[in-house]
Amino acid sequence: MNTWLDIAVDCDFSIYNLPFGIFSTHKKKPQVGVRIGNYVIDLEQTRKLGLLNIPRNICNQSSLNPFIGLGKKRTNAVRMQLQEWLTQENSPLKRHFDHVFHKISDVKMHLPVKIGDYTDFYSSIEHATNAGKIFRPDNPLYPNWKHIPIAYHGRASSIVVSGTPIYRPQGQFKPADAQTPIFGYTKELDFELEIGAIIGRNSEHGKSISTAEAEEYVFGLVLFNDWSARDIQRWETLPLGPFLGKNFASSISPWVVTLEALEGFRVQGPIQEPQPLPYLQVEGIRNFDIQLSAKLNETTITNTNFKFMYWNIAQQVAHHTVNGCNLKIGDILASGTISGSKVGSFGSLLELTWAGKNQITLTNGETRTYLENGDTLTLAGFCEKGGKRVGFGEVVGQII
Amino acid sequence: MNTWLDIAVDCDFSIYNLPFGIFSTHKKKPQVGVRIGNYVIDLEQTRKLGLLNIPRNICNQSSLNPFIGLGKKRTNAVRMQLQEWLTQENSPLKRHFDHVFHKISDVKMHLPVKIGDYTDFYSSIEHATNAGKIFRPDNPLYPNWKHIPIAYHGRASSIVVSGTPIYRPQGQFKPADAQTPIFGYTKELDFELEIGAIIGRNSEHGKSISTAEAEEYVFGLVLFNDWSARDIQRWETLPLGPFLGKNFASSISPWVVTLEALEGFRVQGPIQEPQPLPYLQVEGIRNFDIQLSAKLNETTITNTNFKFMYWNIAQQVAHHTVNGCNLKIGDILASGTISGSKVGSFGSLLELTWAGKNQITLTNGETRTYLENGDTLTLAGFCEKGGKRVGFGEVVGQII
Repeated sequence: MNTWLDIAVDCDFSIYNLPFGIFSTHKKKPQVGVRIGNYVIDLEQTRKLGLLNIPRNICNQSSLNPFIGLGKKRTNAVRMQLQEWLTQENSPLKRHFDHVFHKISDVKMHLPVKIGDYTDFYSSIEHATNAGKIFRPDNPLYPNWKHIPIAYHGRASSIVVSGTPIYRPQGQFKPADAQTPIFGYTKELDFELEIGAIIGRNSEHGKSISTAEAEEYVFGLVLFNDWSARDIQRWETLPLGPFLGKNFASSISPWVVTLEALEGFRVQGPIQEPQPLPYLQVEGIRNFDIQLSAKLNETTITNTNFKFMYWNIAQQVAHHTVNGCNLKIGDILASGTISGSKVGSFGSLLELTWAGKNQITLTNGETRTYLENGDTLTLAGFCEKGGKRVGFGEVVGQII
Repeated sequence: MNTWLDIAVDCDFSIYNLPFGIFSTHKKKPQVGVRIGNYVIDLEQTRKLGLLNIPRNICNQSSLNPFIGLGKKRTNAVRMQLQEWLTQENSPLKRHFDHVFHKISDVKMHLPVKIGDYTDFYSSIEHATNAGKIFRPDNPLYPNWKHIPIAYHGRASSIVVSGTPIYRPQGQFKPADAQTPIFGYTKELDFELEIGAIIGRNSEHGKSISTAEAEEYVFGLVLFNDWSARDIQRWETLPLGPFLGKNFASSISPWVVTLEALEGFRVQGPIQEPQPLPYLQVEGIRNFDIQLSAKLNETTITNTNFKFMYWNIAQQVAHHTVNGCNLKIGDILASGTISGSKVGSFGSLLELTWAGKNQITLTNGETRTYLENGDTLTLAGFCEKGGKRVGFGEVVGQII
């Protein structure tokens, strides 16, 4: 497909992508937009011009939830119509260009969804094994890990959009050589490279979703940085899991890339042995080939891929609802840290520095074990195949 | 105080209480009400009659969140005004009785708040010690317990109001004698007797709340039943804590009893030794003498008290926000299971039957280890002192 817009070949926001987000300008309140190249299509304006048949009070809202609530069939029809017009020289979108398009440099991006509940999985076997080796050398992977897509509930209120500064959290932790805990700023501030799935459909309380239906409940994906304070986490985590070591902030990318846009980038996931219980078995190709990276200031410190995930999104949704737990539009199911099998593909400093034992050296000669004040951490991700590129842009956070 | 309404001496909803909730009738959509005796005061109707100076679109909403958002000063002024009128023979409330009062038998109660995030603490030392002894006889209380009000994030979407049937959840668990997990309905369905604090004020992301300020952020309390499937929980819980063993449902009582109504029932809590870190130290009397009970069908199986809590609400709020995690109106902070030191005061079947080892006998001669289908579990709670009674009513759930 060719569009009449000028878009760089390596742009994440190609004609094949068209993700949704919430933007504002200094004249317009936060509302629904679609990203293409370095522009944002103003969906409310498009609707007002009579070009798109979307009900009122959907596109002018400050979260995507009402738009997502229209259902995949209608939201994807909007995407397809925009895609068609973007390839037609004589399209209403082109005729109304000045009314409908904003330069990306003129907009501010906001949290794309109102998040009800946020769940964090632990679905990368490489990450779980690494974390296990660090904390429990004798018993890296618990006996349940290959039977259950392990997860815990996280904090929704402190999820922020890319660009929001991250305050170094204070808390309680116990230095290895101390008898009692101390209070102070975390000394082990870390990132976690994850992908977040945005729930696109309410499920009924008491009803399970099968792996076959699961993707109908997912609107799209974002990059997700689950900031972590390892010293706080270590001291608090038994017996009920992470709490203050995680809930001070998580950052997400502003553009929700739809599952439809990712369709062409499916790949087979790792072989699951032993075979999971029937409710977790999947048919079809359920992993996605998304190239991921993390940059600490100017230095790329990891390159990994979403395709390494042992448990896929369909299995996560099926597991989450097998007991009747209900999902709501805007909920986020994050993947857990995504690591590959080599050092350069680990998705956290915990793993990259092996819990602070091995420093990493940045391109300017500085070294790091954990994040320092002023550091900027940037996650990026994209799919590429046969000359088509569909990307997520970045999720950026600076420690202050 | 005496009211012109006829109220039984042992009624939870005395003139001293006046809790807030969301009711509907077959003519009226869910909206804000105040409970007194066997009546509900229709707050929107009271406003429309010009009796109360409350902005529009507050009392006619389907959750208390906008009302709570007016702030404690204004919401308590409403409570005080109603209390005054209820004691005056010649009051506008009495004159408009037919317009303003609904019989409790004519209304349906709904979830009182729109819950953003739900956090479950683990603040009863007796419960933590019992659970510890059952699962880890050598190491009942982890070293962090007396330093940290341990907590984890729970699921907000599956919190339901009293009276909602509870589906027995399915899931994965591993029988003690099995090599691999099996799938099926939980065999160990349990309740947990807790109190939930409803957050009454938004806190800023990045800002900590001190123990001295903490109660300003709490609107009131409800009874909370954190239903649990022990076999599912046991198999999934390492290393990230409870997930499907808990998130299928929690039930809360419909009437939010304000902290102001509980003011006269404060009592000193247990001595905390070792002394907590400074950010957790409290001044003043921060525990509440709330008599609590659980009934399985017709049999009272436990009598306990909220005053036993080792960590109080002020400490929970201070801990939760010490890392900058933000609280929002409508969030719930549940206490964790409340147990006393004797068998008859334990707040869960796990403890009452010592993980199913000891059956309990009901008044009709039946025995139980865990809950069976058709069983009804009822939690109740009230304060009583000097002839004044302030209660919560009940939270009821039947297993289906």
